[in-house]
Amino acid sequence: MSFATATAVSHVMGDVYQGKIESGWDIFGNANGGYLMAIAARAMAAVADRPHPVTVTAHYLNPAQPGRVTIDTDLHKSGRRFATVQARLNSPERPLVAVQGTFGTLEPSSTLKRFEAGPPDLPAPEDCVAVEPTDTFPPPYFAKVDVRLHPDDVPFLSDSPPEPRIRGWFRLRDDEPFDTFALLAAVDAFPPASFHAGEQPAWTPTIELTTHVRAAPTSEGWLACAFTTRFITGGFLEEDGEVWDSSGRLIAQSRQLALLPRV
Amino acid sequence: MSFATATAVSHVMGDVYQGKIESGWDIFGNANGGYLMAIAARAMAAVADRPHPVTVTAHYLNPAQPGRVTIDTDLHKSGRRFATVQARLNSPERPLVAVQGTFGTLEPSSTLKRFEAGPPDLPAPEDCVAVEPTDTFPPPYFAKVDVRLHPDDVPFLSDSPPEPRIRGWFRLRDDEPFDTFALLAAVDAFPPASFHAGEQPAWTPTIELTTHVRAAPTSEGWLACAFTTRFITGGFLEEDGEVWDSSGRLIAQSRQLALLPRV
Repeated sequence: MSFATATAVSHVMGDVYQGKIESGWDIFGNANGGYLMAIAARAMAAVADRPHPVTVTAHYLNPAQPGRVTIDTDLHKSGRRFATVQARLNSPERPLVAVQGTFGTLEPSSTLKRFEAGPPDLPAPEDCVAVEPTDTFPPPYFAKVDVRLHPDDVPFLSDSPPEPRIRGWFRLRDDEPFDTFALLAAVDAFPPASFHAGEQPAWTPTIELTTHVRAAPTSEGWLACAFTTRFITGGFLEEDGEVWDSSGRLIAQSRQLALLPRV
Repeated sequence: MSFATATAVSHVMGDVYQGKIESGWDIFGNANGGYLMAIAARAMAAVADRPHPVTVTAHYLNPAQPGRVTIDTDLHKSGRRFATVQARLNSPERPLVAVQGTFGTLEPSSTLKRFEAGPPDLPAPEDCVAVEPTDTFPPPYFAKVDVRLHPDDVPFLSDSPPEPRIRGWFRLRDDEPFDTFALLAAVDAFPPASFHAGEQPAWTPTIELTTHVRAAPTSEGWLACAFTTRFITGGFLEEDGEVWDSSGRLIAQSRQLALLPRV
């Protein structure tokens, strides 16, 4: 099943949309946060009547399992350049994700004035480590997205000094072209950078995830991604992400606040 | 008037709170975004029944002028550790800011595991450049907060090569102790880092601002702040902020997406 199908929504009535959390898009039983964000954002873009998410913030309320969901939306403002929308993704039983975002039309040809950094230095995708799920590890989600890790950044396999950084390539499976909504999934598709933090490896539950889409991606090729954690404080950590397209343009930035599980 | 008074809210009925945008807390006529966020967050913390903002995201809908405001709130979830709340700050005429945030109890003694960076290297506050408003420049807001800029980072005055970075000290006026809500203002209290970007100096309207409060601050002393812009793409820029307290602990991180005015 394509990403487009797995994140599709339809209008029910008024401000309410519906969709479905498909099975397989999960990390050990709970639907991936970026995937959920993409479902909500499709409904929000429809309400906004704009093609692209510009900045979208999700707060995760409860773990999500496969099944029908409704998306309640509220248009805060529709302006000349942007529209701002509220949404809540709900299962029949409980609220799953609260999302707030601004939508607009992004230029594909936007120029980049680069101050500090370029795309991560990655070996070719075929020289990176493909993350292919087995029956036990890693989670099923990696059958839905095609993630290739920098050989130096593979959790558990690397001889390099531990460093809270994960770099790699991302694309959808079956050469599915990606749109700006797929970027919302890309920023949450990699193992936590804090796997390299010298802490016990652990999945870090996301409290909040914000993605800025900086330009419309070209719809082909691999995305070069890099994620870093700079600070762990009192059980919290942030993870910053950058997504670059095949022409070397920064097309998304992300930051999430996550919990470091108490081990 | 203290920051606490200028951001105070009171309960009206049901999910509705009221407050007042005080005059003087503006940047050339429009209320500062961090100040507005603090007003909304006080109402949200009351609804959440938690003392501290943990991660708060504001989307700015319309410019705000002094006067009475209402804050409509909606509790998404109240859990064991955190509660997530929605709010919209409205003037009698129009919606001003949409805010979504998670609230909880932060430890003052949280330990920092530092990977990459410490507090910015700043001269003592008395050796920095105080930003004191005159009749014409800078804006009135700087009479409400006490901002001292690193001498190398003063817009228009510096001989250093332009770099999209602003470092300096922050405190409230009249030695008012600061709480976690004041941190929401601190992250938006400095001139744009992009003043140093080699672009025309210009105030950059904020589309969205997210602040992570990483620990409860000690209530005394100066806060060491650093802001950087790394990428300008197609008229958008991000500004990342860090706030460190007087004991050298990271107490807040921020990121905003702003528009680079077309000049």
